[in-house]
Amino acid sequence: MEEIEVTSSSHSYKIIIGEKIRFRLKLFLPKEYSSIFIISDEMVAPLYIDEIRSNFTREKIFQTILPPGEQTKSIETFYSVHTAAINAGLDRNSLIIALGGGVVGDLAGFVAATYMRGIDYIQIPTTILAHDSSVGGKVAINHELGKNLIGSFYPPRAVIYDVETLQSLSAREIRSGYAELVKEALIADQNFFNTLINTDIQQVTAKELQSHLSLGIKIKADIVQEDERESGVRMYLNLGHTLGHALEAEMGYGKLTHGEAVAIGLLFTLHVSENMFSKQIAYKPLIEWLKENNYPLKLQRLDDNALLNKMKSDKKTVNSKIKMVLLDDIGSPLVKELSDQEILDSLHSFNRKLVTE
Amino acid sequence: MEEIEVTSSSHSYKIIIGEKIRFRLKLFLPKEYSSIFIISDEMVAPLYIDEIRSNFTREKIFQTILPPGEQTKSIETFYSVHTAAINAGLDRNSLIIALGGGVVGDLAGFVAATYMRGIDYIQIPTTILAHDSSVGGKVAINHELGKNLIGSFYPPRAVIYDVETLQSLSAREIRSGYAELVKEALIADQNFFNTLINTDIQQVTAKELQSHLSLGIKIKADIVQEDERESGVRMYLNLGHTLGHALEAEMGYGKLTHGEAVAIGLLFTLHVSENMFSKQIAYKPLIEWLKENNYPLKLQRLDDNALLNKMKSDKKTVNSKIKMVLLDDIGSPLVKELSDQEILDSLHSFNRKLVTE
Ligand SMILES: NC(=O)c1ccc[n+]([C@@H]2O[C@H](COP(=O)([O-])OP(=O)(O)OC[C@H]3O[C@@H](n4cnc5c(N)ncnc54)[C@H](O)[C@@H]3O)[C@@H](O)[C@H]2O)c1
Ligand SMILES: NC(=O)c1ccc[n+]([C@@H]2O[C@H](COP(=O)([O-])OP(=O)(O)OC[C@H]3O[C@@H](n4cnc5c(N)ncnc54)[C@H](O)[C@@H]3O)[C@@H](O)[C@H]2O)c1
Ligand SMILES: [Zn+2]
Ligand SMILES: [Zn+2]
Repeated sequence: MEEIEVTSSSHSYKIIIGEKIRFRLKLFLPKEYSSIFIISDEMVAPLYIDEIRSNFTREKIFQTILPPGEQTKSIETFYSVHTAAINAGLDRNSLIIALGGGVVGDLAGFVAATYMRGIDYIQIPTTILAHDSSVGGKVAINHELGKNLIGSFYPPRAVIYDVETLQSLSAREIRSGYAELVKEALIADQNFFNTLINTDIQQVTAKELQSHLSLGIKIKADIVQEDERESGVRMYLNLGHTLGHALEAEMGYGKLTHGEAVAIGLLFTLHVSENMFSKQIAYKPLIEWLKENNYPLKLQRLDDNALLNKMKSDKKTVNSKIKMVLLDDIGSPLVKELSDQEILDSLHSFNRKLVTE
Repeated sequence: MEEIEVTSSSHSYKIIIGEKIRFRLKLFLPKEYSSIFIISDEMVAPLYIDEIRSNFTREKIFQTILPPGEQTKSIETFYSVHTAAINAGLDRNSLIIALGGGVVGDLAGFVAATYMRGIDYIQIPTTILAHDSSVGGKVAINHELGKNLIGSFYPPRAVIYDVETLQSLSAREIRSGYAELVKEALIADQNFFNTLINTDIQQVTAKELQSHLSLGIKIKADIVQEDERESGVRMYLNLGHTLGHALEAEMGYGKLTHGEAVAIGLLFTLHVSENMFSKQIAYKPLIEWLKENNYPLKLQRLDDNALLNKMKSDKKTVNSKIKMVLLDDIGSPLVKELSDQEILDSLHSFNRKLVTE
């Protein structure tokens, strides 16, 4: 078992990573709660919700189970979960538990942030990708015009990451989660990046996985502690996300997983960076590894202008100039403002390069 | 012109009270903004929005004008204002201006709190009641099952209170606003209470009004600085609101103004308090003053059990026991947990007393 402490502007919380800790939740809660409200999805609940419930024998306990997938991060679901919470009689002394991947975590966190102006919640992430989403307090739902546009900064009271739950993940979700680990490695840690690109992610052992997650989480935790509200270095965590988010939006949420889109975004970032700084950084080893691990790279040809527009409606945009995170080396990110023409040219050359791979 | 400084957990902000300050807004903004987005309602906008716009000649400026009334604090309006903000291209460096009463302030504040996880906003209150709602950072929309159930704590960057705008208020809105001033006086200041009950609120001079507002705001500001998130003394500000909110909900929002409902709630509080502590506190002078000032007191007979249920769904309820703020004297509030039977008995005797007045 491993503990990582994160200090936020409102409180500190622990991230616990280990096996079987889902049976010992009470050890990690900061206080007693009058009632418990578990939010999960239809894939995760049948596997783990009873185990989570078994931690609470004395408390009133309620649950709401949502359809899986990005569509669940909608204003309608947000409102209906509020309705369920009110009907369950949740009060300011109640605890919300987010049991699932990033979708459940982001939605449940935003419900907790806004239920009676904010009640406590904890994250029990069950995907690899959620090592990223469960840490740092960003919670949100999607607007039909863009991802995560409605949300808050609202850190959890604890993140309890039982890696055993990751054993039931599909190959596709493993791929999705590893893309964010690669992102963290690229931002901050050359050795970690080397380790990752020598990993066959479908054959990874429990021990390796836990070590990768803990390295990734530490990188993320360090950054969000330094810059909770994303006025500076937290921007770096958007490496690969400018194009990633645009791809998700343009293809329709759910066609690509978040991580699959980010993987392509990371490759694009490296393409732009290598051109900008006229040197090799990591495009070649990354694309090899992505191919070995069956990441989808051949996309049906998307309209570059449409992608450009989606990139502009991203939250990082100021004055409708696109700010992209680039690398001038592994571990050395920087933010650059790019003109529309530069983006279009880069998309064009990137596409040509991908097609001929 | 008067300035009151409020310190919140995230930042400090100023409340400026004075005449014609709506023409000098830039003096009170903490920084330059890339664009301005004014949210107002159909009553207020024709009167003041051009004056507000005239402050911003260099910035991109947008506006959205909503129907007046409590119904505007809905999830649908919340979402559609987000849509308008996205379409206007607001970014993290934009400013939202809430121009109007408490309805516009609460809604616009909650949009600001959640747009791209939070951008700056200022309050330009235009009702007397909004002296209360614009200070302290409580922002919210209503759920169909209860008022203000979805919201956050998200303080503004400034409150710019131009008392000249209050000249266009209807008699009814003046009454509504004065109820919250009476509440503040009852919580903290016997002299202020004496002044108020010797005031004919439809004849008040600009100077008197400004003095009443500033006294009320100081009481509120002191309390919210001590307890921003309502874990202690901030509860006192709910004096009169347990029944007040239940009346609003039970009669249907908009039948009674918020302040009219609070006025009846204050009277009920005094009724319960005088019985509980077997002494006279202020029931008699308050009811006299309410009658002189034409507050609606003869309600169509409401069902006590229905009111009780609404009182229980209030945010202050913990473990479905009603916590009410009472007074053991003017300036001496306390919180008491009351049983359902005590509430029902009190409602019953209160109603009988009102009918025979
Ligand atoms: N808040 C943040 O900082 C942040 C960071 C990164 C991503 N995100 C968000 O996270 C979301 C993506 O998260 P995700 O990839 O975890 O998606 P997800 O929650 O949709 O989970 C992916 C799929 O795996 C299933 N699943 C989850 N746990 C499982 C388990 N243990 N066994 C079997 N199946 C399981 C889910 O039901 C779902 O079908 C996106 O909405 C993204 O915007 C947020
Ligand atoms: N956030 C808080 O701490 C807090 C505190 C108290 C009340 N509130 C909320 O405030 C709301 C009530 O506020 P309100 O009473 O200001 O209601 P309101 O905003 O509905 O305004 C009342 C009416 O007066 C009109 N109006 C506003 N300014 C005017 C002007 N200068 N001239 C002419 N007409 C004008 C409006 O169009 C509206 O029709 C409620 O929703 C209540 O929950 C919030
Ligand atoms: Zn991501
Ligand atoms: Zn009020």
